[in-house]
Amino acid sequence: MKKVALLLAGCGVYDGSEIYESVLTMLSLENHDASYQCFAPDIEQMHVINHLSGEVVEGEGRNVLVESARLARGRVKNLNEANVADFDAVIVPGGFGVAKNLSDFAVNGAEMNVLPEVLSFMQAMHGAEKPVGLICIAPTMAARIFGSGVKCTIGSDAETAAAITAMGGNHQVCAVDEVCIDKDMKLVTTPAYMVAGSIAEAARGINRCVREVLSLV
Amino acid sequence: MKKVALLLAGCGVYDGSEIYESVLTMLSLENHDASYQCFAPDIEQMHVINHLSGEVVEGEGRNVLVESARLARGRVKNLNEANVADFDAVIVPGGFGVAKNLSDFAVNGAEMNVLPEVLSFMQAMHGAEKPVGLICIAPTMAARIFGSGVKCTIGSDAETAAAITAMGGNHQVCAVDEVCIDKDMKLVTTPAYMVAGSIAEAARGINRCVREVLSLV
Repeated sequence: MKKVALLLAGCGVYDGSEIYESVLTMLSLENHDASYQCFAPDIEQMHVINHLSGEVVEGEGRNVLVESARLARGRVKNLNEANVADFDAVIVPGGFGVAKNLSDFAVNGAEMNVLPEVLSFMQAMHGAEKPVGLICIAPTMAARIFGSGVKCTIGSDAETAAAITAMGGNHQVCAVDEVCIDKDMKLVTTPAYMVAGSIAEAARGINRCVREVLSLV
Repeated sequence: MKKVALLLAGCGVYDGSEIYESVLTMLSLENHDASYQCFAPDIEQMHVINHLSGEVVEGEGRNVLVESARLARGRVKNLNEANVADFDAVIVPGGFGVAKNLSDFAVNGAEMNVLPEVLSFMQAMHGAEKPVGLICIAPTMAARIFGSGVKCTIGSDAETAAAITAMGGNHQVCAVDEVCIDKDMKLVTTPAYMVAGSIAEAARGINRCVREVLSLV
């Protein structure tokens, strides 16, 4: 049974991991007879967004690891405990939390940095030739992890694609049910909710992403 | 296209709606070409549970409608705005929030009350002969909504089943991939995470529940 590390960023599209993408990834892994372990960094969220109003909740803080536990029914570990040797692959679902908590793309765009412990784990997985899946907005981290020339997609959003290009990435326009594969890097990316209008639509690309990641193991 | 009201109770298995059950219900509705609108009451949660430690977070409050918005990507309405005439059916996913926020079953067991606005909407849907789906722990509300003799399942948990019996319900033991149907009441119930050990397992019962609810419209 192939073992996959799932990297979460909180719980909720606007300040954490995108819930549908995370659940669809887990379901797809189960349907492909792969096991998974969720991880998240033990840090404060950049902020809390009221998902009804879309506004920042002033004065409220939440912890990324604790909120990720909602998405994992409690079964999430501190990213610091993740051991590269224990896993065959790693997948990062999307959601603004990836651009706010796992990196600072939401604030700094092409000048972004990836959280050191995230960068370190992702590069160690890549260094061990283990495949990586990045979903939705998560491919904004690709150039920082894999270096210049890496091929990836966030769908077709011009501004995000331009930022990826500015960081040295090789952005490919891609439909919601498609994946972009960089075989040399063992990187699979898919747009999901950067493009999707429904859960079923996101599921098609995510299922394909999971299948391709597992086939690269 | 059949229209289904989805009643949410927050976001997270221990103090809100069970995330996987809610997402699987939405996905199944989409796959059956039904549309849905999420609703939740605009009330404070009974409490906030740290899903990593399992403990109550002292001094923190969250709103059921606002947290439900996380599960709905913002697209949730106040239950007070729900109009029976607009929907063909209603489904309530599980999670402790159903027993803590939509009712007080978690505190009062067989002496429970259903939140007045939830009871009123559910009884109005039933009164209009529209089918109801209750998932996981949600069937603990069945006797209060439908009255004595209503047939339902929460799987096989003896204590919860005894409480349902004490309230006048007719509990049926049921496997995770099965549903219990009370045709006269147009009520479909399935155990989901009262029994399930994986998302794929919960999906089988929930898909069947959604299909049966829609077929009763």
